[in-house]
Amino acid sequence: MEKNFKITIEYDGTNYHGWQRQKKDKTIQEEIEKALFRITGQKITLTGSGRTDSGVHALSQVANFKLKTDLTANIFLKALNSILKDDIIIKKCEEVSLSFHARFDAKNKTYHYFILNGKLPRAIGRMYHWHICHPLDINNMNLAASYLVGEHDFAAFEGAGSPRAHTVRRIFMAEFVKGNDGMIIFKIQASGFLRFMVRNIVGTLKDVGSEKITPDKFKEILLSKNRKNAGPTAPPQGLFLVHVCY
Amino acid sequence: MEKNFKITIEYDGTNYHGWQRQKKDKTIQEEIEKALFRITGQKITLTGSGRTDSGVHALSQVANFKLKTDLTANIFLKALNSILKDDIIIKKCEEVSLSFHARFDAKNKTYHYFILNGKLPRAIGRMYHWHICHPLDINNMNLAASYLVGEHDFAAFEGAGSPRAHTVRRIFMAEFVKGNDGMIIFKIQASGFLRFMVRNIVGTLKDVGSEKITPDKFKEILLSKNRKNAGPTAPPQGLFLVHVCY
Repeated sequence: MEKNFKITIEYDGTNYHGWQRQKKDKTIQEEIEKALFRITGQKITLTGSGRTDSGVHALSQVANFKLKTDLTANIFLKALNSILKDDIIIKKCEEVSLSFHARFDAKNKTYHYFILNGKLPRAIGRMYHWHICHPLDINNMNLAASYLVGEHDFAAFEGAGSPRAHTVRRIFMAEFVKGNDGMIIFKIQASGFLRFMVRNIVGTLKDVGSEKITPDKFKEILLSKNRKNAGPTAPPQGLFLVHVCY
Repeated sequence: MEKNFKITIEYDGTNYHGWQRQKKDKTIQEEIEKALFRITGQKITLTGSGRTDSGVHALSQVANFKLKTDLTANIFLKALNSILKDDIIIKKCEEVSLSFHARFDAKNKTYHYFILNGKLPRAIGRMYHWHICHPLDINNMNLAASYLVGEHDFAAFEGAGSPRAHTVRRIFMAEFVKGNDGMIIFKIQASGFLRFMVRNIVGTLKDVGSEKITPDKFKEILLSKNRKNAGPTAPPQGLFLVHVCY
Protein backbone atom coordinates (compact mmCIF):
# COMPACT_ATOMS: atom_id res chain seq x y z
CA MET A 1 0.00 0.00 0.00
CA GLU A 2 1.38 3.40 -0.88
CA LYS A 3 1.93 5.65 2.09
CA ASN A 4 3.00 9.28 2.46
CA PHE A 5 5.19 10.28 5.40
CA LYS A 6 5.79 13.80 6.70
CA ILE A 7 9.01 14.29 8.63
CA THR A 8 10.15 17.24 10.75
CA ILE A 9 13.89 17.67 10.81
CA GLU A 10 16.39 19.60 12.93
CA TYR A 11 19.83 20.00 11.42
CA ASP A 12 23.12 21.72 11.99
CA GLY A 13 24.04 22.95 8.52
CA THR A 14 27.70 23.61 9.35
CA ASN A 15 29.05 20.58 7.54
CA TYR A 16 26.59 20.47 4.64
CA HIS A 17 26.19 22.18 1.29
CA GLY A 18 22.60 23.02 2.12
CA TRP A 19 19.41 21.02 1.84
CA GLN A 20 19.16 20.10 -1.82
CA ARG A 21 20.81 17.04 -3.34
CA GLN A 22 23.81 17.88 -5.55
CA LYS A 23 26.11 15.93 -7.78
CA LYS A 24 29.23 16.24 -5.64
CA ASP A 25 28.74 17.85 -2.26
CA LYS A 26 27.18 16.42 0.87
CA THR A 27 23.65 17.71 1.52
CA ILE A 28 20.91 17.10 4.07
CA GLN A 29 18.45 15.75 1.50
CA GLU A 30 21.00 13.25 0.22
CA GLU A 31 21.88 12.01 3.71
CA ILE A 32 18.22 11.33 4.53
CA GLU A 33 17.56 9.72 1.14
CA LYS A 34 20.58 7.46 1.66
CA ALA A 35 19.23 6.48 5.07
CA LEU A 36 15.79 5.75 3.52
CA PHE A 37 17.51 3.55 0.94
CA ARG A 38 19.24 1.59 3.69
CA ILE A 39 15.92 1.08 5.49
CA THR A 40 13.74 0.19 2.49
CA GLY A 41 16.06 -0.81 -0.34
CA GLN A 42 14.12 1.70 -2.46
CA LYS A 43 15.38 4.88 -4.13
CA ILE A 44 13.07 7.40 -2.50
CA THR A 45 12.90 11.10 -3.38
CA LEU A 46 12.43 13.42 -0.45
CA THR A 47 10.40 16.58 -1.07
CA GLY A 48 11.49 19.41 1.20
CA SER A 49 9.41 22.49 2.07
CA GLY A 50 12.16 24.43 0.31
CA ARG A 51 15.91 24.68 0.13
CA THR A 52 18.22 25.99 2.75
CA ASP A 53 21.64 27.18 1.64
CA SER A 54 25.08 25.91 2.51
CA GLY A 55 25.78 26.41 6.22
CA VAL A 56 22.19 27.39 7.13
CA HIS A 57 20.52 25.51 10.00
CA ALA A 58 16.99 24.27 10.64
CA LEU A 59 15.08 23.70 13.85
CA SER A 60 12.03 22.39 11.98
CA GLN A 61 12.47 21.73 8.30
CA VAL A 62 9.60 19.67 6.87
CA ALA A 63 9.75 17.10 4.08
CA ASN A 64 7.65 14.21 2.78
CA PHE A 65 8.27 10.95 0.94
CA LYS A 66 6.00 8.35 -0.60
CA LEU A 67 6.51 4.63 -0.96
CA LYS A 68 4.82 1.25 -0.77
CA THR A 69 5.69 -0.19 2.61
CA ASP A 70 4.38 -2.02 5.67
CA LEU A 71 6.61 0.03 7.94
CA THR A 72 4.99 2.52 10.32
CA ALA A 73 5.87 6.17 10.93
CA ASN A 74 7.35 5.28 14.31
CA ILE A 75 9.63 2.66 12.78
CA PHE A 76 10.86 5.19 10.20
CA LEU A 77 11.49 7.72 13.00
CA LYS A 78 13.65 5.30 14.98
CA ALA A 79 15.41 3.76 11.99
CA LEU A 80 16.27 7.15 10.44
CA ASN A 81 17.66 8.50 13.72
CA SER A 82 19.72 5.38 14.28
CA ILE A 83 21.33 5.72 10.83
CA LEU A 84 21.73 9.50 10.52
CA LYS A 85 24.68 11.32 12.06
CA ASP A 86 24.06 13.43 15.14
CA ASP A 87 23.87 16.70 13.19
CA ILE A 88 20.60 15.62 11.54
CA ILE A 89 17.72 14.68 13.86
CA ILE A 90 14.27 13.52 12.74
CA LYS A 91 12.04 15.11 15.38
CA LYS A 92 8.76 13.72 14.10
CA CYS A 93 7.47 11.27 11.50
CA GLU A 94 3.76 11.09 10.72
CA GLU A 95 1.77 9.26 8.10
CA VAL A 96 -0.26 11.83 6.18
CA SER A 97 -2.75 11.77 3.30
CA LEU A 98 -1.32 10.92 -0.11
CA SER A 99 -2.13 14.45 -1.28
CA PHE A 100 0.23 16.16 1.19
CA HIS A 101 3.14 17.94 -0.50
CA ALA A 102 5.78 19.57 1.72
CA ARG A 103 6.53 22.37 -0.75
CA PHE A 104 3.19 23.15 -2.40
CA ASP A 105 1.16 22.94 0.82
CA ALA A 106 3.43 25.20 2.91
CA LYS A 107 1.39 28.30 3.88
CA ASN A 108 4.22 30.26 5.38
CA LYS A 109 7.69 29.89 6.82
CA THR A 110 9.51 31.50 9.71
CA TYR A 111 13.24 32.12 9.82
CA HIS A 112 15.31 33.50 12.68
CA TYR A 113 18.66 35.18 12.18
CA PHE A 114 20.99 35.47 15.18
CA ILE A 115 23.38 38.41 15.51
CA LEU A 116 25.84 38.59 18.39
CA ASN A 117 26.29 42.31 18.93
CA GLY A 118 29.21 42.99 21.26
CA LYS A 119 32.87 43.91 21.27
CA LEU A 120 34.13 40.38 21.66
CA PRO A 121 33.38 37.37 19.50
CA ARG A 122 32.55 34.06 21.19
CA ALA A 123 34.17 30.68 20.84
CA ILE A 124 31.16 28.80 22.20
CA GLY A 125 28.31 28.67 19.68
CA ARG A 126 30.23 30.69 17.07
CA MET A 127 28.70 28.48 14.33
CA TYR A 128 25.23 29.73 15.23
CA HIS A 129 25.44 33.52 14.88
CA TRP A 130 26.96 36.48 13.04
CA HIS A 131 29.26 38.52 15.25
CA ILE A 132 29.09 42.29 14.76
CA CYS A 133 31.33 44.24 17.10
CA HIS A 134 30.10 47.84 16.70
CA PRO A 135 26.79 48.72 18.38
CA LEU A 136 23.69 48.36 16.19
CA ASP A 137 20.71 50.73 16.43
CA ILE A 138 17.93 48.20 16.88
CA ASN A 139 15.17 50.85 16.79
CA ASN A 140 16.20 52.06 13.35
CA MET A 141 16.58 48.48 12.17
CA ASN A 142 13.04 47.73 13.33
CA LEU A 143 11.69 50.84 11.61
CA ALA A 144 13.33 49.74 8.37
CA ALA A 145 12.14 46.14 8.86
CA SER A 146 8.55 47.35 9.23
CA TYR A 147 8.60 48.47 5.56
CA LEU A 148 9.00 44.82 4.56
CA VAL A 149 5.66 43.74 5.96
CA GLY A 150 2.96 43.22 3.34
CA GLU A 151 3.05 42.09 -0.28
CA HIS A 152 6.07 43.40 -2.19
CA ASP A 153 8.33 42.59 -5.07
CA PHE A 154 11.53 41.50 -3.31
CA ALA A 155 13.78 41.50 -6.40
CA ALA A 156 16.17 43.88 -4.57
CA PHE A 157 16.92 41.14 -2.03
CA GLU A 158 17.08 38.18 -4.39
CA GLY A 159 20.26 36.18 -4.92
CA ALA A 160 21.51 35.46 -8.40
CA GLY A 161 20.44 32.33 -10.28
CA SER A 162 17.24 31.65 -8.37
CA PRO A 163 14.67 29.42 -10.07
CA ARG A 164 11.30 31.14 -9.50
CA ALA A 165 8.18 32.25 -11.40
CA HIS A 166 8.13 35.77 -9.97
CA THR A 167 9.65 37.79 -7.10
CA VAL A 168 6.52 38.91 -5.24
CA ARG A 169 6.17 37.56 -1.71
CA ARG A 170 4.01 38.41 1.31
CA ILE A 171 5.78 39.14 4.59
CA PHE A 172 3.68 38.72 7.74
CA MET A 173 6.29 39.67 10.33
CA ALA A 174 9.80 41.14 10.30
CA GLU A 175 11.30 42.36 13.56
CA PHE A 176 14.36 42.31 15.77
CA VAL A 177 14.07 41.23 19.39
CA LYS A 178 16.79 41.35 22.03
CA GLY A 179 17.96 38.04 23.45
CA ASN A 180 20.42 37.35 26.27
CA ASP A 181 24.10 38.29 26.43
CA GLY A 182 24.18 40.66 23.46
CA MET A 183 22.20 38.45 21.09
CA ILE A 184 19.78 40.14 18.68
CA ILE A 185 17.33 37.90 16.86
CA PHE A 186 15.67 38.88 13.58
CA LYS A 187 12.35 37.05 13.16
CA ILE A 188 10.77 36.98 9.74
CA GLN A 189 7.68 35.13 8.54
CA ALA A 190 6.55 35.10 4.91
CA SER A 191 4.50 33.19 2.38
CA GLY A 192 7.78 32.19 0.83
CA PHE A 193 11.33 33.38 0.36
CA LEU A 194 13.55 34.04 -2.63
CA ARG A 195 17.04 32.65 -2.67
CA PHE A 196 19.34 34.50 -0.18
CA MET A 197 16.39 36.81 0.60
CA VAL A 198 16.64 36.67 4.40
CA ARG A 199 20.41 37.03 4.36
CA ASN A 200 20.29 39.93 1.90
CA ILE A 201 17.65 41.64 4.02
CA VAL A 202 19.69 41.10 7.21
CA GLY A 203 22.87 42.37 5.53
CA THR A 204 21.06 45.52 4.40
CA LEU A 205 19.36 46.02 7.78
CA LYS A 206 22.80 45.75 9.37
CA ASP A 207 23.78 48.77 7.24
CA VAL A 208 20.79 50.57 8.76
CA GLY A 209 21.84 49.53 12.28
CA SER A 210 25.37 50.80 11.58
CA GLU A 211 23.98 54.17 10.38
CA LYS A 212 25.45 53.56 6.95
CA ILE A 213 21.98 54.02 5.46
CA THR A 214 18.72 55.41 6.88
CA PRO A 215 15.46 53.47 7.29
CA ASP A 216 14.05 55.61 4.45
CA LYS A 217 16.93 54.57 2.22
CA PHE A 218 16.14 50.94 3.09
CA LYS A 219 12.58 51.51 1.88
CA GLU A 220 13.92 53.01 -1.36
CA ILE A 221 16.12 49.97 -1.89
CA LEU A 222 13.12 47.65 -1.47
CA LEU A 223 11.08 49.71 -3.95
CA SER A 224 13.96 49.91 -6.45
CA LYS A 225 13.70 46.11 -7.03
CA ASN A 226 17.39 46.23 -7.90
CA ARG A 227 19.81 43.90 -6.10
CA LYS A 228 22.69 46.30 -6.82
CA ASN A 229 21.24 48.80 -4.33
CA ALA A 230 21.05 46.37 -1.41
CA GLY A 231 23.76 45.65 1.14
CA PRO A 232 25.95 42.58 1.58
CA THR A 233 24.65 39.06 2.10
CA ALA A 234 24.78 38.15 5.78
CA PRO A 235 26.79 34.99 6.46
CA PRO A 236 24.87 31.69 6.55
CA GLN A 237 25.66 30.48 10.07
CA GLY A 238 23.26 32.93 11.78
CA LEU A 239 20.22 31.69 9.87
CA PHE A 240 17.71 29.12 11.14
CA LEU A 241 14.56 27.82 9.46
CA VAL A 242 12.41 27.58 12.58
CA HIS A 243 8.90 26.76 11.39
CA VAL A 244 6.92 25.74 8.32
CA CYS A 245 3.17 26.27 8.61
CA TYR A 246 0.67 24.07 6.72
CA MET B 1 61.48 45.14 31.79
CA GLU B 2 59.90 41.88 32.86
CA LYS B 3 56.13 41.93 32.83
CA ASN B 4 53.49 39.43 33.91
CA PHE B 5 50.25 39.19 31.94
CA LYS B 6 47.03 37.55 33.05
CA ILE B 7 44.72 36.40 30.28
CA THR B 8 41.11 35.23 30.44
CA ILE B 9 40.23 32.75 27.73
CA GLU B 10 37.03 31.32 26.26
CA TYR B 11 37.44 28.16 24.23
CA ASP B 12 35.45 25.51 22.47
CA GLY B 13 37.27 22.32 23.42
CA THR B 14 35.66 20.18 20.71
CA ASN B 15 38.72 20.07 18.47
CA TYR B 16 41.43 20.00 21.15
CA HIS B 17 43.04 17.40 23.37
CA GLY B 18 42.44 19.56 26.41
CA TRP B 19 44.34 22.48 27.85
CA GLN B 20 47.79 21.10 28.55
CA ARG B 21 50.60 20.97 25.99
CA GLN B 22 51.36 17.44 24.76
CA LYS B 23 53.92 15.90 22.49
CA LYS B 24 51.58 15.02 19.64
CA ASP B 25 48.05 16.30 19.98
CA LYS B 26 46.72 19.80 19.51
CA THR B 27 45.97 21.60 22.78
CA ILE B 28 44.76 25.04 23.86
CA GLN B 29 47.96 25.87 25.75
CA GLU B 30 50.09 25.01 22.73
CA GLU B 31 47.99 27.12 20.36
CA ILE B 32 48.32 30.18 22.60
CA GLU B 33 52.04 29.60 23.19
CA LYS B 34 52.56 29.34 19.42
CA ALA B 35 50.70 32.62 18.96
CA LEU B 36 52.87 34.25 21.67
CA PHE B 37 55.96 33.01 19.84
CA ARG B 38 54.73 34.60 16.61
CA ILE B 39 54.15 37.90 18.40
CA THR B 40 57.35 38.06 20.46
CA GLY B 41 59.83 35.61 18.91
CA GLN B 42 60.24 34.20 22.42
CA LYS B 43 59.40 30.71 23.68
CA ILE B 44 56.97 31.59 26.43
CA THR B 45 55.43 29.12 28.86
CA LEU B 46 51.81 29.74 29.69
CA THR B 47 50.67 28.84 33.22
CA GLY B 48 47.02 27.87 33.31
CA SER B 49 44.79 27.87 36.40
CA GLY B 50 44.57 24.13 35.83
CA ARG B 51 43.98 21.62 33.10
CA THR B 52 40.80 20.92 31.29
CA ASP B 53 40.43 17.53 29.62
CA SER B 54 40.00 16.66 25.99
CA GLY B 55 36.70 18.02 24.67
CA VAL B 56 35.94 20.16 27.74
CA HIS B 57 35.09 23.85 27.19
CA ALA B 58 35.89 27.05 29.06
CA LEU B 59 34.01 30.32 29.32
CA SER B 60 36.72 31.87 31.49
CA GLN B 61 39.91 29.91 31.84
CA VAL B 62 42.72 32.02 33.32
CA ALA B 63 46.44 31.83 32.56
CA ASN B 64 49.53 34.01 32.95
CA PHE B 65 52.83 34.44 31.16
CA LYS B 66 55.97 36.44 31.93
CA LEU B 67 58.45 38.02 29.56
CA LYS B 68 60.60 41.06 28.92
CA THR B 69 58.71 43.24 26.50
CA ASP B 70 57.63 46.76 25.64
CA LEU B 71 54.29 45.51 24.39
CA THR B 72 51.17 46.42 26.35
CA ALA B 73 48.34 44.18 27.53
CA ASN B 74 46.03 45.68 24.93
CA ILE B 75 48.45 44.90 22.12
CA PHE B 76 48.74 41.29 23.30
CA LEU B 77 44.94 41.05 23.43
CA LYS B 78 44.55 42.20 19.83
CA ALA B 79 47.54 40.33 18.45
CA LEU B 80 46.56 37.03 20.11
CA ASN B 81 42.97 37.26 18.86
CA SER B 82 44.11 38.08 15.35
CA ILE B 83 46.35 34.98 15.25
CA LEU B 84 44.24 32.43 17.14
CA LYS B 85 41.49 30.47 15.43
CA ASP B 86 37.90 31.38 16.22
CA ASP B 87 37.47 28.57 18.73
CA ILE B 88 39.90 30.24 21.16
CA ILE B 89 39.09 33.82 22.22
CA ILE B 90 41.19 35.94 24.56
CA LYS B 91 38.50 37.87 26.45
CA LYS B 92 40.84 39.92 28.61
CA CYS B 93 44.55 40.64 28.96
CA GLU B 94 45.82 42.57 31.99
CA GLU B 95 49.29 43.34 33.26
CA VAL B 96 49.53 42.05 36.83
CA SER B 97 52.18 41.99 39.55
CA LEU B 98 55.13 39.69 38.93
CA SER B 99 54.04 37.55 41.87
CA PHE B 100 50.71 36.54 40.29
CA HIS B 101 50.50 32.82 39.48
CA ALA B 102 47.40 31.54 37.70
CA ARG B 103 47.50 28.12 39.38
CA PHE B 104 48.82 28.79 42.90
CA ASP B 105 46.74 31.94 43.45
CA ALA B 106 43.39 30.44 42.36
CA LYS B 107 41.08 30.47 45.39
CA ASN B 108 38.27 28.47 43.84
CA LYS B 109 36.84 27.37 40.52
CA THR B 110 33.35 26.98 39.19
CA TYR B 111 32.31 24.42 36.60
CA HIS B 112 28.93 23.98 34.95
CA TYR B 113 27.80 20.72 33.42
CA PHE B 114 24.92 20.81 30.91
CA ILE B 115 22.52 17.88 30.59
CA LEU B 116 19.80 17.90 27.95
CA ASN B 117 17.05 15.82 29.52
CA GLY B 118 14.37 14.96 26.97
CA LYS B 119 13.26 12.21 24.64
CA LEU B 120 14.91 13.67 21.56
CA PRO B 121 18.54 14.62 21.07
CA ARG B 122 19.35 17.95 19.40
CA ALA B 123 21.44 18.66 16.34
CA ILE B 124 21.99 22.33 17.26
CA GLY B 125 24.45 22.71 20.13
CA ARG B 126 24.97 18.95 20.50
CA MET B 127 28.68 19.59 21.24
CA TYR B 128 27.74 21.50 24.39
CA HIS B 129 25.67 19.04 26.42
CA TRP B 130 25.09 15.43 27.42
CA HIS B 131 21.78 14.11 26.14
CA ILE B 132 19.89 11.80 28.52
CA CYS B 133 16.53 10.62 27.20
CA HIS B 134 14.86 9.12 30.28
CA PRO B 135 13.50 11.56 32.89
CA LEU B 136 15.90 12.43 35.71
CA ASP B 137 14.73 13.03 39.29
CA ILE B 138 16.33 16.40 39.92
CA ASN B 139 15.21 16.53 43.58
CA ASN B 140 17.00 13.30 44.43
CA MET B 141 20.05 14.45 42.47
CA ASN B 142 20.12 17.67 44.48
CA LEU B 143 19.77 15.78 47.76
CA ALA B 144 22.74 13.60 46.79
CA ALA B 145 24.72 16.63 45.57
CA SER B 146 24.23 18.33 48.94
CA TYR B 147 26.41 15.63 50.54
CA LEU B 148 29.34 16.88 48.48
CA VAL B 149 29.41 20.32 50.11
CA GLY B 150 32.19 20.79 52.63
CA GLU B 151 35.67 19.33 52.97
CA HIS B 152 35.91 15.71 51.90
CA ASP B 153 38.31 13.16 50.51
CA PHE B 154 37.13 12.82 46.91
CA ALA B 155 39.19 9.72 46.04
CA ALA B 156 35.94 7.95 44.99
CA PHE B 157 35.54 10.46 42.15
CA GLU B 158 39.13 10.71 41.02
CA GLY B 159 40.26 9.61 37.57
CA ALA B 160 43.23 7.28 37.21
CA GLY B 161 46.77 8.62 36.86
CA SER B 162 46.18 12.04 38.40
CA PRO B 163 49.25 13.91 39.65
CA ARG B 164 48.24 15.32 43.09
CA ALA B 165 49.52 15.51 46.64
CA HIS B 166 46.27 14.40 48.25
CA THR B 167 42.61 13.93 47.38
CA VAL B 168 40.95 16.25 49.89
CA ARG B 169 39.06 19.20 48.42
CA ARG B 170 36.51 21.70 49.73
CA ILE B 171 33.27 22.09 47.81
CA PHE B 172 31.37 25.35 48.33
CA MET B 173 28.38 24.67 46.10
CA ALA B 174 26.98 21.68 44.19
CA GLU B 175 23.48 21.89 42.77
CA PHE B 176 21.31 21.30 39.73
CA VAL B 177 19.18 24.09 38.32
CA LYS B 178 16.64 23.86 35.52
CA GLY B 179 17.39 25.79 32.35
CA ASN B 180 15.23 26.28 29.26
CA ASP B 181 13.99 23.61 26.87
CA GLY B 182 14.83 20.57 28.97
CA MET B 183 18.32 21.68 29.94
CA ILE B 184 19.53 20.84 33.46
CA ILE B 185 22.69 22.59 34.64
CA PHE B 186 24.90 21.22 37.41
CA LYS B 187 26.85 24.03 39.11
CA ILE B 188 29.80 23.13 41.25
CA GLN B 189 32.33 25.39 42.98
CA ALA B 190 35.35 24.06 44.87
CA SER B 191 38.80 24.97 46.13
CA GLY B 192 40.12 22.67 43.44
CA PHE B 193 39.23 19.58 41.48
CA LEU B 194 40.82 16.20 40.96
CA ARG B 195 41.16 14.82 37.48
CA PHE B 196 37.75 13.78 36.01
CA MET B 197 36.18 14.71 39.38
CA VAL B 198 33.27 16.76 38.02
CA ARG B 199 32.51 14.23 35.29
CA ASN B 200 32.68 11.28 37.71
CA ILE B 201 30.39 13.13 40.12
CA VAL B 202 27.93 13.96 37.33
CA GLY B 203 27.99 10.38 36.03
CA THR B 204 27.23 9.06 39.52
CA LEU B 205 24.54 11.71 40.17
CA LYS B 206 22.94 10.64 36.88
CA ASP B 207 22.63 7.14 38.41
CA VAL B 208 20.81 8.81 41.33
CA GLY B 209 18.53 10.72 38.92
CA SER B 210 17.79 7.47 37.07
CA GLU B 211 16.88 5.74 40.37
CA LYS B 212 19.68 3.26 39.87
CA ILE B 213 21.10 4.28 43.26
CA THR B 214 19.64 6.27 46.17
CA PRO B 215 20.99 9.58 47.50
CA ASP B 216 22.13 7.65 50.60
CA LYS B 217 24.05 5.24 48.41
CA PHE B 218 25.69 8.25 46.75
CA LYS B 219 26.84 9.43 50.20
CA GLU B 220 28.23 5.95 50.91
CA ILE B 221 30.18 6.04 47.64
CA LEU B 222 31.72 9.40 48.58
CA LEU B 223 32.70 8.10 52.03
CA SER B 224 34.08 4.84 50.59
CA LYS B 225 36.88 6.80 48.85
CA ASN B 226 36.92 4.02 46.28
CA ARG B 227 36.55 4.85 42.59
CA LYS B 228 35.23 1.36 41.90
CA ASN B 229 32.00 2.23 43.71
CA ALA B 230 31.24 5.36 41.68
CA GLY B 231 29.26 5.54 38.43
CA PRO B 232 30.45 6.18 34.89
CA THR B 233 32.40 9.26 33.78
CA ALA B 234 30.04 11.76 32.12
CA PRO B 235 31.14 12.70 28.58
CA PRO B 236 33.37 15.78 28.22
CA GLN B 237 31.23 17.93 25.93
CA GLY B 238 28.78 18.97 28.68
CA LEU B 239 31.48 20.45 30.90
CA PHE B 240 32.43 24.14 31.05
CA LEU B 241 35.00 25.85 33.26
CA VAL B 242 33.05 29.04 33.92
CA HIS B 243 35.02 30.97 36.55
CA VAL B 244 38.33 31.03 38.39
CA CYS B 245 38.34 33.18 41.52
CA TYR B 246 41.53 34.90 42.78
